[in-house]
Amino acid sequence: MTIAQRQGFYALVEDELAELQQRLRDVGRGAHPTFAAASTHLFGSPGKLLRPTLVFLAARFGPHSSDRTIVDLAESLELVHTASLVHDDIVDRADVRRNVPTVNAVWNDDVALIVGDYLFAKAYALAAVLPKPEVIAIVAQTVFALCDGELTEVTSPPAIPSEKQYLDRIELKTASLYAACCQGAALLADADPEHVAALGAYGTNVGLSFQITDDVLDLVGSEALGKEVGRDLAEGMPTLPMIYAVEDSEGDELASRILAPDKDPRERRDLIARIRASGGVERAHGRARLFHDQAVAALDRLPERPERDALREVADFILRRER
Amino acid sequence: MTIAQRQGFYALVEDELAELQQRLRDVGRGAHPTFAAASTHLFGSPGKLLRPTLVFLAARFGPHSSDRTIVDLAESLELVHTASLVHDDIVDRADVRRNVPTVNAVWNDDVALIVGDYLFAKAYALAAVLPKPEVIAIVAQTVFALCDGELTEVTSPPAIPSEKQYLDRIELKTASLYAACCQGAALLADADPEHVAALGAYGTNVGLSFQITDDVLDLVGSEALGKEVGRDLAEGMPTLPMIYAVEDSEGDELASRILAPDKDPRERRDLIARIRASGGVERAHGRARLFHDQAVAALDRLPERPERDALREVADFILRRER
Repeated sequence: MTIAQRQGFYALVEDELAELQQRLRDVGRGAHPTFAAASTHLFGSPGKLLRPTLVFLAARFGPHSSDRTIVDLAESLELVHTASLVHDDIVDRADVRRNVPTVNAVWNDDVALIVGDYLFAKAYALAAVLPKPEVIAIVAQTVFALCDGELTEVTSPPAIPSEKQYLDRIELKTASLYAACCQGAALLADADPEHVAALGAYGTNVGLSFQITDDVLDLVGSEALGKEVGRDLAEGMPTLPMIYAVEDSEGDELASRILAPDKDPRERRDLIARIRASGGVERAHGRARLFHDQAVAALDRLPERPERDALREVADFILRRER
Repeated sequence: MTIAQRQGFYALVEDELAELQQRLRDVGRGAHPTFAAASTHLFGSPGKLLRPTLVFLAARFGPHSSDRTIVDLAESLELVHTASLVHDDIVDRADVRRNVPTVNAVWNDDVALIVGDYLFAKAYALAAVLPKPEVIAIVAQTVFALCDGELTEVTSPPAIPSEKQYLDRIELKTASLYAACCQGAALLADADPEHVAALGAYGTNVGLSFQITDDVLDLVGSEALGKEVGRDLAEGMPTLPMIYAVEDSEGDELASRILAPDKDPRERRDLIARIRASGGVERAHGRARLFHDQAVAALDRLPERPERDALREVADFILRRER
């Protein structure tokens, strides 16, 4: 079963996605053998490709949606995303992502560092030749946002953040890239400025909804679906459901247990049960639904088209997915 | 004493260098506080600024040498250089560079990783708006070359390389950036294609001469001048003087001792004495002089100008410096 058969919203942009996947498979061709092998490893089993799907759907709101530069933008942003994951996995000492061993686990941290640099360089080389300076600036701003978010993460003292601090961080680390996909593609395709703004708002909100849902799934996801459960907890990384659970609890005991590093599996299971038993998970899911609703509301400012329906389906899928 | 007073060749481009230094001091302004602090740390005590000096001198061979874009290129390539050093220092577990503690030593590896990503992003953002796609491509190719060189370094089995393997590696890791400075600047300033080619050849050869001289100084430099001696040996990183010393020795004993990790200070001193006693250091210095001579010969293809004399002085300085 190909991706396009799994969810209806892929169907509209199947051709572009196929071209993108071919390009991603070729990223390492002719380069250093270790980079070539790491690229094959990274792009051999494609993920959900939500970000490029958003690029291709958003571009359809402008007259130049079939320009090759749209695929360049999609590839550039997917490479930015992959490069930042490769570097994050070093920082997080992660061995597995999406059921696949990380580059640092298969090779080592040194190789992963350079492979990430290489992917960023490929991403920028593609972005640099895009015909619109404002779109190039969006790609650059996205990387700055990712770095800002990651720096905030590694320099924060071990403490439960406020809801606002959490939302600021995920806006930098996740939503900025979703916004760049939608807004950048619409700009590049010469869409009406109002539609560019609507797609930017859609992207930001859908990105926030995506990340909160991800953080909820980390606590309630099914390991049978290949989702490693409790990874944020294991790392002592407080997410929104935990923040809400701590708000509902008395004293500092739950906060200290969440922040403690190197939890054993038993403590991890106990904590998951405790957080699930609080209203934190439902409240976080409700917050994700609010962002979903704002994303969908932004779509009202776009003309009625199959692509608009598809964007709504993407937002629904992001909120309802189980992995 | 400012840099410009130290060596005559700086005098011609003093204004551009001053502007560049101001820009580098401002790189972290308004960004994440940790990035701002790391930037101040990195750019607070400027190095020799040889690469930007080459950019400004090479640009003088075209009619547009005083365009602001020339300073953009110089800043972009200096940021590429700094970013790659910050990442290399993680890989090399280096605590000190040019007598200054590294970012990974002052903060930690995670911060250094993200600071490097940030600097690369700044470099690309500057390069992306340069008015000539072929110059943007040169910046991108340079980063690929740096990554290739570094990947070759971290994936090589512990063995003494051949002279050719060594030269290939330093061409990727050092000379490509020198070539980009000279060739990129000349292209951007609209110099005659023959002069662009001559400056490219000059840059490659001066870069090779620079790196071999650096590797010689690592063995014979004076610690009184603030040069940490024997660092390559300590890391088990074979350089040209060592390659030649091994060629001159009998059996595998010297090779194994050079490649051994975690040498104690006594073994390091013994090995330095042994390599100095061989003809390896003089032969490597002779090889650097050959590249110097080829660099100077390339200058004959340029019109006679004070900038041409200055480029010759840079080549002489690179060969004769003591730190």
